[in-house]
Amino acid sequence: MRELFQKQLEQLHTLLIEMGALCEQVIERTYLVLMAEDKKAAAEIMEKDEIIDMKEREIEDLCLKILLQQQPVASDLRRVSAALKMITDMERIGDQASDIAEIIKTSNLKAPAKEIRLNEMAKATMQMVKESIDSFVKQDLEIAQKVIKDDDIVDNLFLDVRGQIASGLTDDLVSREEQLDLLMIAKYYERIGDHATNIAEWVEFSILGQHVEEE
Amino acid sequence: MRELFQKQLEQLHTLLIEMGALCEQVIERTYLVLMAEDKKAAAEIMEKDEIIDMKEREIEDLCLKILLQQQPVASDLRRVSAALKMITDMERIGDQASDIAEIIKTSNLKAPAKEIRLNEMAKATMQMVKESIDSFVKQDLEIAQKVIKDDDIVDNLFLDVRGQIASGLTDDLVSREEQLDLLMIAKYYERIGDHATNIAEWVEFSILGQHVEEE
Repeated sequence: MRELFQKQLEQLHTLLIEMGALCEQVIERTYLVLMAEDKKAAAEIMEKDEIIDMKEREIEDLCLKILLQQQPVASDLRRVSAALKMITDMERIGDQASDIAEIIKTSNLKAPAKEIRLNEMAKATMQMVKESIDSFVKQDLEIAQKVIKDDDIVDNLFLDVRGQIASGLTDDLVSREEQLDLLMIAKYYERIGDHATNIAEWVEFSILGQHVEEE
Repeated sequence: MRELFQKQLEQLHTLLIEMGALCEQVIERTYLVLMAEDKKAAAEIMEKDEIIDMKEREIEDLCLKILLQQQPVASDLRRVSAALKMITDMERIGDQASDIAEIIKTSNLKAPAKEIRLNEMAKATMQMVKESIDSFVKQDLEIAQKVIKDDDIVDNLFLDVRGQIASGLTDDLVSREEQLDLLMIAKYYERIGDHATNIAEWVEFSILGQHVEEE
């Protein structure tokens, strides 16, 4: 019984790493699409988002199976319930990457994105997602807490981008409709930052055994 | 044991209804704040959002307790796992209502909101949240499926609002920054519609025993 349990936990760990890697990949591709380096990456994002959705179901089923068969306690229970929560955030990251791809694939927003530093925002978010997954894989509290702190950077970048669009910085580059698209893309990145933060908070919970409330 | 189980399931049902009612209340209040009918409702939204967060934790704990103590199967297991998922969507509804309140409380957006039919969008979303909770309380498949269908209405309203802002309809009424705020509010309502749809889909899953995939 204990042996099966260990095997199931390892399987869960592997699946989460796979799902996390997919999240990293889709975010990275949004950047490539945004910077017009790779237009066909948009289609790949949609495909990978579907795989992310399937992984979520698979992990959910495994977690429920573990809960029912093994009735884990203490740190094992925390690990399984943290997994159940994390996958919701990972799934949303996939969705939001798809939303970004959907907006960009028809228009060329590279120049205005650079002008308002949306490219920097994309990079900062990419980093956060990467590190949140990393903190889980390595069960590393320090990395998790860095991610939680970095969310402020992305939040501030969002306000910058918004201010720059409002001030008319992109007026000569793109239509007003496209300016609103830029704002939406920025908002999606900001949300992705929130989800990376949530993942890091679940890692923290799983290690420390409690939710750490923000001041 | 069976008696305790029934009691726990009833408790879960009651807690979900309470959390759902809070979600309805916060959405309703965003409308009041937006329409400038009740400025102090913004503070109430923040307060209620905190209670929603606490309810989420409480329900989560109860669900895990039920899973571990009772090892439910079939429809009972579906009910508990649907509950675990639904509360995530309810919690986000609270968050997004807070985000809307945060934007509106400092500015007066009533006139432009009416101009671009954002008030209609708010009303349509309110209806969806109300009915998604209703479908859960009554375990009514028909209401759930109506909510899932209505999501298109809210999605289209979002595109309308976006188009109207882009076309300059609110240019004479508010600053550009405030126009971007209007777009963000519209986006939050659109997301709330998505969450209501998710809740309805979980009700559907819990009744039918499977996920119904959208075409």
